[in-house]
This record gives sequence, structure tokens and C-alpha cells, in this order.
Amino acid sequence: MIKDSLRAQVIETPSWAYGNSGTRFKVFAQRGVPRDPFEKLADAAQVHAFTGVAPQVALHIPWDRVDDYAALAGHASGLGVRIGAINSNVFQDDDYMLGSVTNPDAKVRAKALEHLLDCVDIMDATGSDTLKLWFSDGINYPGQDDLRARQDRLAEALDRVYGRLGEGQRFLLEYKLFEPAFYATDVPDWGTAYAHCLRLGPKAQVVVDTGHHAPGTNIEFIVAFLLREGKLGGFDFNSRFYADDDLMAGAADPFQLFRIMFEVIGGGGFTEDVAFMLDQCHNIEPKIAGQIRSVMNVQEATAKALLVDREALAAAQAAGDVLGANAVVMDAYNTDVRPLLAEIRTEAGLDPDPMAAYARSGYFEKIAEERVGGTQAGWGA
Amino acid sequence: MIKDSLRAQVIETPSWAYGNSGTRFKVFAQRGVPRDPFEKLADAAQVHAFTGVAPQVALHIPWDRVDDYAALAGHASGLGVRIGAINSNVFQDDDYMLGSVTNPDAKVRAKALEHLLDCVDIMDATGSDTLKLWFSDGINYPGQDDLRARQDRLAEALDRVYGRLGEGQRFLLEYKLFEPAFYATDVPDWGTAYAHCLRLGPKAQVVVDTGHHAPGTNIEFIVAFLLREGKLGGFDFNSRFYADDDLMAGAADPFQLFRIMFEVIGGGGFTEDVAFMLDQCHNIEPKIAGQIRSVMNVQEATAKALLVDREALAAAQAAGDVLGANAVVMDAYNTDVRPLLAEIRTEAGLDPDPMAAYARSGYFEKIAEERVGGTQAGWGA
Amino acid sequence: MIKDSLRAQVIETPSWAYGNSGTRFKVFAQRGVPRDPFEKLADAAQVHAFTGVAPQVALHIPWDRVDDYAALAGHASGLGVRIGAINSNVFQDDDYMLGSVTNPDAKVRAKALEHLLDCVDIMDATGSDTLKLWFSDGINYPGQDDLRARQDRLAEALDRVYGRLGEGQRFLLEYKLFEPAFYATDVPDWGTAYAHCLRLGPKAQVVVDTGHHAPGTNIEFIVAFLLREGKLGGFDFNSRFYADDDLMAGAADPFQLFRIMFEVIGGGGFTEDVAFMLDQCHNIEPKIAGQIRSVMNVQEATAKALLVDREALAAAQAAGDVLGANAVVMDAYNTDVRPLLAEIRTEAGLDPDPMAAYARSGYFEKIAEERVGGTQAGWGA
Amino acid sequence: MIKDSLRAQVIETPSWAYGNSGTRFKVFAQRGVPRDPFEKLADAAQVHAFTGVAPQVALHIPWDRVDDYAALAGHASGLGVRIGAINSNVFQDDDYMLGSVTNPDAKVRAKALEHLLDCVDIMDATGSDTLKLWFSDGINYPGQDDLRARQDRLAEALDRVYGRLGEGQRFLLEYKLFEPAFYATDVPDWGTAYAHCLRLGPKAQVVVDTGHHAPGTNIEFIVAFLLREGKLGGFDFNSRFYADDDLMAGAADPFQLFRIMFEVIGGGGFTEDVAFMLDQCHNIEPKIAGQIRSVMNVQEATAKALLVDREALAAAQAAGDVLGANAVVMDAYNTDVRPLLAEIRTEAGLDPDPMAAYARSGYFEKIAEERVGGTQAGWGA
Repeated sequence: MIKDSLRAQVIETPSWAYGNSGTRFKVFAQRGVPRDPFEKLADAAQVHAFTGVAPQVALHIPWDRVDDYAALAGHASGLGVRIGAINSNVFQDDDYMLGSVTNPDAKVRAKALEHLLDCVDIMDATGSDTLKLWFSDGINYPGQDDLRARQDRLAEALDRVYGRLGEGQRFLLEYKLFEPAFYATDVPDWGTAYAHCLRLGPKAQVVVDTGHHAPGTNIEFIVAFLLREGKLGGFDFNSRFYADDDLMAGAADPFQLFRIMFEVIGGGGFTEDVAFMLDQCHNIEPKIAGQIRSVMNVQEATAKALLVDREALAAAQAAGDVLGANAVVMDAYNTDVRPLLAEIRTEAGLDPDPMAAYARSGYFEKIAEERVGGTQAGWGA
Repeated sequence: MIKDSLRAQVIETPSWAYGNSGTRFKVFAQRGVPRDPFEKLADAAQVHAFTGVAPQVALHIPWDRVDDYAALAGHASGLGVRIGAINSNVFQDDDYMLGSVTNPDAKVRAKALEHLLDCVDIMDATGSDTLKLWFSDGINYPGQDDLRARQDRLAEALDRVYGRLGEGQRFLLEYKLFEPAFYATDVPDWGTAYAHCLRLGPKAQVVVDTGHHAPGTNIEFIVAFLLREGKLGGFDFNSRFYADDDLMAGAADPFQLFRIMFEVIGGGGFTEDVAFMLDQCHNIEPKIAGQIRSVMNVQEATAKALLVDREALAAAQAAGDVLGANAVVMDAYNTDVRPLLAEIRTEAGLDPDPMAAYARSGYFEKIAEERVGGTQAGWGA
Repeated sequence: MIKDSLRAQVIETPSWAYGNSGTRFKVFAQRGVPRDPFEKLADAAQVHAFTGVAPQVALHIPWDRVDDYAALAGHASGLGVRIGAINSNVFQDDDYMLGSVTNPDAKVRAKALEHLLDCVDIMDATGSDTLKLWFSDGINYPGQDDLRARQDRLAEALDRVYGRLGEGQRFLLEYKLFEPAFYATDVPDWGTAYAHCLRLGPKAQVVVDTGHHAPGTNIEFIVAFLLREGKLGGFDFNSRFYADDDLMAGAADPFQLFRIMFEVIGGGGFTEDVAFMLDQCHNIEPKIAGQIRSVMNVQEATAKALLVDREALAAAQAAGDVLGANAVVMDAYNTDVRPLLAEIRTEAGLDPDPMAAYARSGYFEKIAEERVGGTQAGWGA
Repeated sequence: MIKDSLRAQVIETPSWAYGNSGTRFKVFAQRGVPRDPFEKLADAAQVHAFTGVAPQVALHIPWDRVDDYAALAGHASGLGVRIGAINSNVFQDDDYMLGSVTNPDAKVRAKALEHLLDCVDIMDATGSDTLKLWFSDGINYPGQDDLRARQDRLAEALDRVYGRLGEGQRFLLEYKLFEPAFYATDVPDWGTAYAHCLRLGPKAQVVVDTGHHAPGTNIEFIVAFLLREGKLGGFDFNSRFYADDDLMAGAADPFQLFRIMFEVIGGGGFTEDVAFMLDQCHNIEPKIAGQIRSVMNVQEATAKALLVDREALAAAQAAGDVLGANAVVMDAYNTDVRPLLAEIRTEAGLDPDPMAAYARSGYFEKIAEERVGGTQAGWGA
């Protein structure tokens, strides 16, 4: 049942999407931005309130560091949401200029590892079952450091973190083509992440960030391949025209998002534990509304992918009918699924138009007025 | 005479390369970073002192705003350097979130234009003859603003600035594929910059930043084409593996830098007023040493390009001798020109090895010790 | 009226799409492929018969060389179609190995020019008003030939062709990033084509082939810019994931095609003489069906672009409402326009489903049976 | 000893580089092109005669099919060369339009597998120890076939071929981003090739073709990673500015080739069995001279990489000295190694300048005169 699948889908939003963000040129400040993790959760709860499918919120450590994580989890619960993945951050400290877990300096590596293990403690405290590992580690110039030695150091750190994981916990290893490292990144592609995870075992999986690939990369192929290998742990959804632009999911290439969801469904990603997470920045658009729109975009792509007539498709593929097989897929894509999603929302007691309902709610005006003073949350806060 | 050309080459360094810089993920702080425009000039003077070819320093307004520009110019003069291009900055103010001169809001446009005209005043005050215009303007989402209306607004602002230029002054219009705008940038390619400059007249020229192109773009073709049209105003040199990485010139693709200089020389760029400027960020490497190395890289590429046997090349080209013509160019590229440059330095009373001489000078240790307290200069400071 | 615009749209198909084509690795032969220009026109007429919007057929010279062009035009007329653009071909002759109009050898240049002028004769004979100029000219190795000298030679040839154009005739200059030249192409981007056309005058315009750009290039920006300058002559539609893949228009990135049509409409491209031409290869899919599908894809993108609520959009843009403005555009894109197009077809006496109707017609079975023997048309035939 | 390493290096040339080749637009015919595998070997022997490091010649089946492979191997031996890798070809037959080993049609898959097993027979007959597997398999349109099912079929074929390999034999699996498949290629990246090879065992390794990556891919990282995993089987060297341009190795980006060789040496690639093979097309340059030049380019990159002061480099890396470490690498790259290589050649009794010596030899004039009539070898011949 298409409706059942859509109702069951969980789309996790990231705490950092509610704070200010920007490019290296400028972080534009917006009104009403949260000043602490509790306010971020409150904003995330709005996204869930209007869409009904965003009950999980990812944390970023140390940005979301609090004294009492159980209290934070309780606060979330009171808002109708729960803590999702714990995202480690070993890139915003002067010590990490030349790398964190792959740094040539053993002291820096030890510090970074310590942080990763702390994140598992936070998982224990919050009940989160997923640790997301992204390393900005890499080098800017040929020769700056030894590529192979850095892999050895990376493997060592991953071993330690893997060994610390408890029952029912896993980590997702993220890869990224470039930025902030410009010559060589230590986990630049899915193959590198896959090789490390394969060696470690079932608690290590790959996370696909849709903005982290070279131009021309077929992301849905990677998705299909990792699912076949049992190594797809989840997604960091966002969209991009050029590099890691971190625009709203589905905004730059909605057809690509549809093709990804088509492979997820075909590969059994809905029955396995594939996490659908957003990871994006709202540099110029309002934060909460931007998240609602992104969630809806993922839903629409999913709905279209669920509509594909798999039986007709298989028949056309088996017959070598190039145009026929493609047409089956395009028929689903060209369908306007917004009425279907509106219906599902109405049936669930939600407003059929989350964007309009949120706008009418006055929540933005309220926080814009209330949240003055204090340090507004941004990258690093 | 190859030596004469190398001795005559002027490579301009940018004041902002001496301050802290970084990516959106982190700006790593370095020791000894200047705290005001005067200290930046002092650092730039070191680069000139050891290389002998970097007597000009570009300013960035408002980062280098001072009360008395004549005093600043005098200070430069006392250090043996002079003020180069004035770089306008209309991207680091909350008002510019949706654009500066192309903003849909006329008040914001007026403010941006005001700033540009101020920059011409600073040219008058400092004796600079070149205004560099880079606009981060663009949009992140399809439909966000009207692409054509933004061109109209851009044209209007350029008209005003052009009209304000005095005798012997010019502006260079910079283009950039993307970042910080992610869907459409208002001056995304050389064609757009060229079309605007052509309409305006001889005081408007295009500046080529070597990091601002799509993958696969043949930059030296653009150089040759603009020279043929009399519209190449200068370069912002830096290097990149992926996007606008802003690494040291010549570090990522020294062969490309050589090919660019080869076209510059062939197209008469040495006799016309083509400015050789560096525009790069030293995120992880020491600032002054990084500039010295960059200057030397440009010199080496220039020396190799000057070595090309143009007569033999023309003969091979006329004969349709593909391998022969390519070999003439590669022979020059494969030559080790470091001894030649060392000789030129020695003849000029400089140390033949600028990097070693600078390291021995103790300048870095001195500023690292002295420059504590105050706000260290970074992007925006 | 949206329906009127859709009814008035003319989508030109290329004669070469009906013959065999392939990659450098293999040209796969298909059944029923035409053996001469007359059979190609017959196939093109099928596309028009089922879609009602493809009455023009582009020719490629010398592939479509016949003794009597008036007879060919008459044959087209009898089939309900007419001759569209004349496409010159100066790349399939051993003499052109090092270039055609930019060849260092004056004799080769003269031969190429002769061919171009012949094409204008064919325009006269067939009543075609458009000459399409694509030059594969370029070099594979740095130094192989002089980039600037090649521009001089190109300009000379274009001058001659321009001077030969009669009343009501124009040429469209095509640009392409790379292939078959791999180091430098003589007309690699829109800026180069634009500069040459600008110098020549109103009968010279730029044609945008949607597969001829570097990764990350914003094609609709180019469209908007050229329309603003009065220099957009038309499109060669096709789609691509990587390079110049020449897949069916709208197949790889339907959102991009929509954005292009959105700019065409906004820029007045429907009232000016912008040609909508297909230029693609059906390497593995059936030729005629592939063209029908492509025509429909262009129609669907056009219909969606026409649906954009321009008034609401302008209001949101003026208000700086990023999400609101984007939503207006996305609302149109997310609409299923197939019912609207089916209605228009039915009103015009056509089958609402061209693909199904063509399949039922038995035309393919007929030509597959009849067209045996003779040389099947392919690239170069 | 650097000289010993350079003397020991073996660079294999491909039989198909001696025949005509081209792009989809045109194959330009050259004079003196071989008409059968025996003549190809004769040409390859010339490359070895003048460089002294190219004693192996790769075959392509069926292009180099002969009745008696032992006789062919004997012919090679008489010319002073030997048979290198056997390259399978399952892309030039109409049956493979929708794939070979991944085709939805089991009959086509069986045919393709048969061919691969034949190639192992040819290895047995010629004494070749390496089978190179490149599959052009993939799809052009989303939905055209099932991505995961195609992996299953691929795995099945690889299993069969792996099982057929004898003692001392291996296969190298090649990956390629795109072309001739344009939407999804079945082995698009090193990760896919690696995963299949890992499952199979030590006789399966990955081959890196330097032209088969997305823009911005760091190839030397892949090299270092595969060496660390013991899965780098060899290289197909060529160079490219854009896509799979197949230009002469080292011509487009000599610095990249140097960086690759730097990782090969650091990763122990010289002591393990890493094959240095050329795989390129000479579309416009003379074939034999083009191969000689390519071999020399690989030698020069190797010599520079061997010159890197590994001790100084390790010290700078350990100290976090970004500029110092990079300088060690650049010092080697900037060295002119041509005198060193000339010396080695002279010591070996060869002419120090292979290009000039070959030109003087009159071999080209001889074959141009003799090889008239017959079918000249080209792709598919």
C-alpha cells in the first residue's frame, strides 16, 4: 500500500538547520533563530507538527552540548519528537587544522578519538542508536601528508569507535569529494567508506550525502549497490547545482531525488534500517519553513517512486523495450502526487498544506519577537 | 630578452592574503597575523623584499578602510611598495543577503552603488588606477528573482561606476561560476563580463580569476580571446583542484599556469596593461611564505613560457606537425628555470632562494611575538 | 492563452535522427532505417502526423545531398512537412583532420568555405531561412596550433558566409565545450559565439545545444542573457547526464528543460524567431518513437513553463520572498500537464496519446519489412 | 637506485594504438597503418627498439584474432617483444546493444561469457598472464533495466571467468564513469570494481584507466588506497582534459601523472605486480611516434617521482610543515629529468633521443609506402 509506506516514512531533521548558516563569504543573520539546543528542538517540533513525518531530530556535538542529555531527550519527548542521530564534529577546533583522526600528531588524534567516544556516551544518554561520522580530514597540497598513513590512522580510530558501540548501536561513515580539504580528502568517495565499513562489520554502514559527489556521479547507482551489499545506512538529503551547496532537498534536481527513492524502494530500503535524514543549510530562506518544504519534497519524491508500476517495468525491461521501460518510470514521475499527500495528511488530522498552515500559525512571528538577546545559534554555536 | 621580461614583471599581492581565512567550516587562527591595513602592508613589503617583483598591494574595502588613505599610501611608499587595485566588497553586510547592485530592493542597490563610488574616491586618494569589481550577487533557487531584471540592474550600476572613473582609471569586472550563489550567479562567466564591458568602453575590462570556472574550461583560450578583443584587464591568480579552492598559484596545475602565461605572451599581454594579481587564501599554510611561494610559481611559469621557441613553433604549426608543435611547447615546460631565476635575483642583489632567505630573516618570529592583542585581521576585518 | 501558445509551437526534427548513430565504440544497426533523404522525410512526417507540432525537418549536408533540392522540398510538402534549417558539415572528410575553416592550410579552409556557401545555395533552393554552423574545429594538444590565429581564420570565414546570406536568411552559430577536439575548441562557449555574431550583425545569432556545456553551467542563464541581447537564434535540444550524450530531450533532466522554457517565455522567445530544434541520436531506442517522445517532452516542459503564475511570481520576487517565489515556479513544474496536452491533441483531431497511436499504426513494421537492401542511412550516409 | 628502477620499468603498449582510431564524428585514416596483428607487433617493436622499456604488447580480441596464437607469440619474440595483457571486447557486436554480461537476455550473456573464456584460452596459448576486462555495459535511460539485477549478472559472469583462470593468471577489472553508456554504467567507479574483486580473491584486481573518472576525482588517492588493499593490478595510461579523451599519457596533466607515480612508488607498486600499460588513441598524431612520446612521458614522470627525497618529506610531514612538505615534492617535479633518461639510454646502447632517432630511421616512410592495399587496421579491424 502506497499510503501505508508514506505514512510510515520518517524524515529526520538536523538541529543545525534551525540556526544561522552561510558560506565562507558571509553568514546572514535571521530573526528568531534559536539560542540553545532546547529552542532548536522546539523549532524541529514545528516541522513534525505540520508534516507528521519528522519526529526525529539529529544533534551535532559540540554544538548541541548540554549538561543533562536525559533532560534534553525528555524535553524532546514533551515536544512530541525524539533524538535521532548523534553527529560528531571534529573540525571546528584550531587543533584540527591538519586533520583530526588522521592528523600526523598523535595528541590531536587522541583528542579527536576522545570526542568520538564521548558521542557514544551521548547516544547512551539520549537513547540514540546512530552515530554519524564525518571527517573533514584531508590535505590541501600534494605531499602535505602521506595518503596511506592517513588511512592507517583512520582505520585505527574507526576500530576504536566500533569497539565502543553497544548493542543496537551503529555508526554511519560519511564520504565527501572535497571541502574543506582541497587536494585529497581522507574519505572522498563511497568506495573508501565502504571498504572501511566492510572490514569492521555490520554495525558500520555508509551514509550517502546527496551533495558530496563529483559532477556526473550517478548517486542512485551507489544507493542500489550499497543496498545490495547491506551497507547503506542512510541519507543526508540536500540538493546542489554545483558543489556541496546544501540547498533544500529536491530543489535543484527533483528527478534525481525521485530516482534515488526509486532505487531505495526497489532495493528494500524501506524494510531495512535506512535513515532518511536532512542535512542542509538555509542561508537565505527561513529555517523552519525551509525544513517543512524539504520534508515535503522528500515525501513527493517517495510517493512518485512508490507509484512506479514495478510489474509493467519488469516486463518492459525483460523485453529489452528501452522506451517502454523508461516510460513506466516517467509516468510515475510525471504524476502530480500532491493531492495524494494532502489526502494522507487530512486523514491524519493534519492540514493538507503544511506550508500555509505553518505560515498561519504565527510561530515565526512569535519566536522573532521572543528570541532577542542571547547568542543566536549558528555553525559553531 | 627573457631576463628583461622577467625583471619587468610585476606581481601584485592582496592585503587579505596576510590575514586569517578559511572555509565555511572553520577559520583557523595563525600567529602573527596583522591587525590593521598598515601591518598588512608591512607583510606585503616582505614579499617584495625577497622576490623583487611584488611592489604592489591590492586593498579590499571595507576591510582596509582607514581614515587617511594618503597616509596609507605614504606608509606603503616608505615600505617600498605601492597601492594596487582597489577591491570593492558588497557581500559582507546583512543587507546584501539577496544581492547588492542586483538586489530587488532599490534601497539596497543604492547603498551598494554608493560603496562602489566610494571606492573610486579611494582610488583618487591612493593613486590606484584600477577598481576590481566582484559581485557575489545571484540566487539560490529557480524563480527566486528575475534573471533578466537582475542584468538590467547590474548594467545600471556599471554605467554609474563607469561614468565616475577619471582619466587613467579603469575597472575590471570579475566573473565566477558559483559561490556564494548556488543556482544562478549574475556574472557567471567571461561572456557576461565581456558583454557588459564591451558596451561600456575601453575603461572596462575583464579580469580572469583562475579558480572561477566550470570543470573542463580551457582558461587559456579565454585569455587568448580576450587579448584579441583588447578586453583582458588582468588576472586573479590562485589554483584549485575542484572549485574556487584559492590555493597557491601554480600549486594545483602548474602546467595550466604555464599555458596561460604562454597565451599572455603570445597575445601581447606583456606590452599591454594586463595586471598579474594574486587572489588566494592561505587557510593552513603560513601567510607570507605562502605568498612568496606563489609569486615564485608565477615567475617560473612565466619564465618557461618565455622560453618557448616561437619560430620553431610557428613552423611546426604551419606544417601541421602535431607532435612537433606540441614538443616545442613541452620542451620549454620541461626545462628547469629555477637556476635562471636564481641568477636574475642574484644580479638584482637579492638572495637566490627567497623562501630560505625569508625563513632565515626571523620576520615571522618577530611578528608572532609582537602581534598579540588587538583583533587579528581576517575576512571581514 | 496557454493552449494557443502550445498549438503554435513548432518543434523541428533533424533528418539524421532517423538514421543509425552510435558512439565511437559501436554504431548499432536498427531495422527499417531510411536509405536516403526522401525516406528520412517520410519518417519525420510520421512524427508530425502524430504530434501535430513537428512540421519542419532539418537537413544535414552532405548527408542529405540530392540532385534536385526543389524536388526534395516538394516531396516534403507532399508529406505535410517542410525543410527547416540547413546544417553544414565540415567534419567528415580526411582533409579536415586539423580543422576546416580554422585549418592552418589555406586550401582546406577554401574547401570548407566553399561547402558553407553551397549550403546557402541549398537554402535558396529549398526555401530554408536558417543555416546552422557547427565547427568541430579545435586542437588536441597545447601548441598544436595558434589559438588566436584560428580565431582570425574563423572570423574571415564567418564574414564570407554572412555576406552571402540573402534577405530573410540568417545563420546560427553553435558552440560546444569539447569533442571531437579535446584540448581547445575554436567555438567552445556562448561567449565566443556571441562575440562573433555581435560583430557581424542581426543575421548572425547563437544556437544553444543543451548538451554542449561544462558541468554545472546554468544554461537558462545563457538563454535569458542572449534573449536580452537579441542574439538567441534557437535551440538544439537533447539531454545528457555527462557530456554530449545526445539522449532524448527532457529525459535526463526534465526540470532543466522546464527552466529553459521558463526563461524563453519570460524573455519573449515565443514572439521572436527562436527555433526549437531537436538534435539528438537514438543509439539504442527506436528512431521515430524516440523523436515522438522527445517532441512530447519539449511540449510538456513548455506547458509547465506557460503555467507559471507570472504575476504571483513577480510579487514574491519584489518582496524578497525566497520560498514563495520558488514555490510559484515549482507549483507549475509539479503540475501534471499531460491531460492538457491530450485535450489539445484531441481538439486538433489527433490521438491524445501519440506514442500509442504511432505504435498501433504499424508504420514501423512496414518500414522494417520494406527497407531491406540498399545502404541504411547513418552518420555520414 | 633511481637508475635501476627506471631501467627495470616495463611500459606495455596496446596493439590498437597502431591502427586508425577516432571519435564518433570521424575516423581519420593515416598512412602506413598496419593491416593485421603481425604488422601491429612490428610497429610496437619499433617503440621498444627506440625506448628500451616497451617489450610488451597488449592484444585486443577479436581485433587481434589469428588462427595460431603460438605463431603470433613466436612472431613477437622474433621482433624482440612479447604478448602482454589480453583485452576482451564484448562491445562491438549488434547483440550487445543492451549489454553483454549484464544483458537482460540470457543468450547474449552466454555469448559474452563464451568470449571471455575464449580469451583465457588465448592467454594459455600466448603465455599471457593477464586478462583485462572492460565492460561497456550500462543503460542510457532511467528504468531501462534493473541496476541491481545487472550487478547480479555481472557477478555471475565474473565468477565463471575467475574460476577458469589458471595458475599464475589474473584478471584486471576496469571501471569507467560513462561512455558508451550514458545514464548508468555497470562498473562506473573503483569502488564497484574493488567490491567485485574483493569477493573473488587474489587473482582479481582493479585496473585504473586515467581517463575514466569524473571531473575533480583524485586518481592518486585511489592508487594509494588500492595499493594499501593489495588490489591495484595496473594502469591504462592516457590523458584527458575533459572526458575519456585518450590523448597521449602525460600530455594533458603531467603533474597528475607525476603524482600518480609518486603514490605508486610510495605504495610499493614497483615491487608488486602493477602493470604499466598505455591505452590511448592517436586520432590525429602519427601512431608510432605518439606511442614513443607517451612512453617517454611515463618515464619522465617516474623519474621525477623517484627523485622525491622521501626522508626529508617524512620529516616535514611529521612536523606539520605544509609548505616544506609540498616543496620537497615540487622540487622533484620541477627537476628536468631528461638528461638523466638520456644518460640511461646511452648506457643501454640506445639513442638518447628516441623521437629523433625514430624519425631518422625511415621506418614510417617505409610502412607508408609498403602498406597499401588490404584493409587498414582500425577499431574493429
